[in-house]
Amino acid sequence: MKREVFVGNVGIGGDHPVSIQSMTTTDTSNAESTIDQIRQLYIAGCEIIRVAVPDQDSISPLKKIKSESPIPVIADIHFNPNLAMGAIDAGVDGIRINPGNIGSKEKLGRIIKSAADHNISIRIGVNSGSIEKKYLIQGKTRAEMMVNSALDKIKFFEDSDFSNIKLSLKSSDVMETIDAYRKIDRVCDYPLHLGITEAGTLFSGTIKSSIGIGSLLAAGIGNTIRVSLTDDPIEEVKVAVEILKVLGLRERGIEVVSCPTCARVSVDLINIVKAFEEKLGKLKLNKNIKIAIMGCEVNGPGEAKEADIGIAFSKSKAYLFRKGKMIEKLDPANSLDRLLEIIRNI
Amino acid sequence: MKREVFVGNVGIGGDHPVSIQSMTTTDTSNAESTIDQIRQLYIAGCEIIRVAVPDQDSISPLKKIKSESPIPVIADIHFNPNLAMGAIDAGVDGIRINPGNIGSKEKLGRIIKSAADHNISIRIGVNSGSIEKKYLIQGKTRAEMMVNSALDKIKFFEDSDFSNIKLSLKSSDVMETIDAYRKIDRVCDYPLHLGITEAGTLFSGTIKSSIGIGSLLAAGIGNTIRVSLTDDPIEEVKVAVEILKVLGLRERGIEVVSCPTCARVSVDLINIVKAFEEKLGKLKLNKNIKIAIMGCEVNGPGEAKEADIGIAFSKSKAYLFRKGKMIEKLDPANSLDRLLEIIRNI
Repeated sequence: MKREVFVGNVGIGGDHPVSIQSMTTTDTSNAESTIDQIRQLYIAGCEIIRVAVPDQDSISPLKKIKSESPIPVIADIHFNPNLAMGAIDAGVDGIRINPGNIGSKEKLGRIIKSAADHNISIRIGVNSGSIEKKYLIQGKTRAEMMVNSALDKIKFFEDSDFSNIKLSLKSSDVMETIDAYRKIDRVCDYPLHLGITEAGTLFSGTIKSSIGIGSLLAAGIGNTIRVSLTDDPIEEVKVAVEILKVLGLRERGIEVVSCPTCARVSVDLINIVKAFEEKLGKLKLNKNIKIAIMGCEVNGPGEAKEADIGIAFSKSKAYLFRKGKMIEKLDPANSLDRLLEIIRNI
Repeated sequence: MKREVFVGNVGIGGDHPVSIQSMTTTDTSNAESTIDQIRQLYIAGCEIIRVAVPDQDSISPLKKIKSESPIPVIADIHFNPNLAMGAIDAGVDGIRINPGNIGSKEKLGRIIKSAADHNISIRIGVNSGSIEKKYLIQGKTRAEMMVNSALDKIKFFEDSDFSNIKLSLKSSDVMETIDAYRKIDRVCDYPLHLGITEAGTLFSGTIKSSIGIGSLLAAGIGNTIRVSLTDDPIEEVKVAVEILKVLGLRERGIEVVSCPTCARVSVDLINIVKAFEEKLGKLKLNKNIKIAIMGCEVNGPGEAKEADIGIAFSKSKAYLFRKGKMIEKLDPANSLDRLLEIIRNI
């Protein structure tokens, strides 16, 4: 069993179920559009979101993104340690770095210290395409080179008294990726983040990720996954959800998703959802459906279009919707009972 | 290493590359439409085709289908041994049966004798959904039950002096399928036909098949594959090709496909293709492209729409096409040189 690491409230490793990650494609400096995309990804099944932090302009919006995101936020950092420090100060739940491109050990040490002070985890992301020269040794496979690079990095983190670590060893070659993860799995007990890098288009990337991530999970390897596609990240999450379902790693049953609430919400959504879940629990239904309870009739149905059925509240009305389309307008007082009635008949 | 078995001219097991199978969705009693579909599947990358033989009406068209198919033909038989005998007499290259639904051992024995007399191979197809009662033993997993069922059937075939066998142990559950194949792989050396049954729609079925077939192939298990999808079988073949490419099991390089010729062909296509391949070989190009040389301008471009580029001959003209669309009309005498020029620049 792997060690337990947390990204916000999501446990990775230990006894925790395999979690799904994705990455926003919006400009991080645009907090609004980034938050919108995170909400859609969350409703599709994403449990941890990574946002790129390519420059100083992306730092200040991180605070808002973090505070409005319904799921933990990881900052993706390359080259510049100051961006890592800034992101940590802005309150992110974790960072992902490729220690090989951060520069000196001193710079890496500063990041580690800051993460330790804020008690957040770091993913060490080794990529086949950017293995440092010293590991490119003739006679070794690229999988072995990636493992050697990862082990040295782990040692540096451990020597700095830091073990709040996840690992990834990604390649765009599926066999190489499988090989690298199998090897690292045998020699260390840090939780593993699985993915195939540059997997390609929806068609080819779905197949690559399914084979790579799927065969590792089938062998009991992997604690959190990210499907990479050259497409809308919603597609990444859908493929990831399907991979977990196919392998029996995600029994969806009845799933209730709800929006994280914002300024537009005029009802007491948190207690509405609680009351709904209580009523739903009493019905003891054995169905696989996703139900959305949204606090706003403007964005609710669209954001929750991945849900099988849902309800969106305005000030005075409740709107029933299926797959993003309004089907009934209701009195809020009776709306939950009507929703339950429909769910019973689905 | 697995034993070597042949379906027509396609070797399975031994040193042979993993081959791709698909199944027609046309009415087998309609020879023309079945042959059309087989040609399209062949051009997409299918190497062995299976056709259902559900009734006596499907028997007589089999002879025509077999004689015009560019790839070996397997007859899929359920319940009725006479259909198997009829298909074998019609000249098919192999048959697929689930011995569990054929009936008495005497009936099965007759099929085996006929296959032996015609020197064709039989796939023993065990399906999780139709395991016979005697194997449903408490405390055993379904994978174990499938393996036990398969081993008993193998024994019966061997006792009948027949070892021209392939095996499949399919389930709609991916983990169960992986488990069953891993187990049978350890205990017998007959070549394995991999597939996930009832895999579902294009989205879900692609993911299921990629995980199931892909993780077995990645572990070195499997000799021929069929992706099952509730969709056009062309999609099955595309997914299968991609799975093999992703795992480095199919280096396509330059591939030349050509139609099997029919009454409509007015040129000496066989020698045209030979001459073209000779010229092409001298260029020593390192590209992954599929080139089609078709003997008829009416059906050629459409049938070969999976090809990157192709040429279709009429009586007096040659038509260059890319992805199924005509792009140039040429004098047949210069057409191959023009095609080579374009290929060099792709």
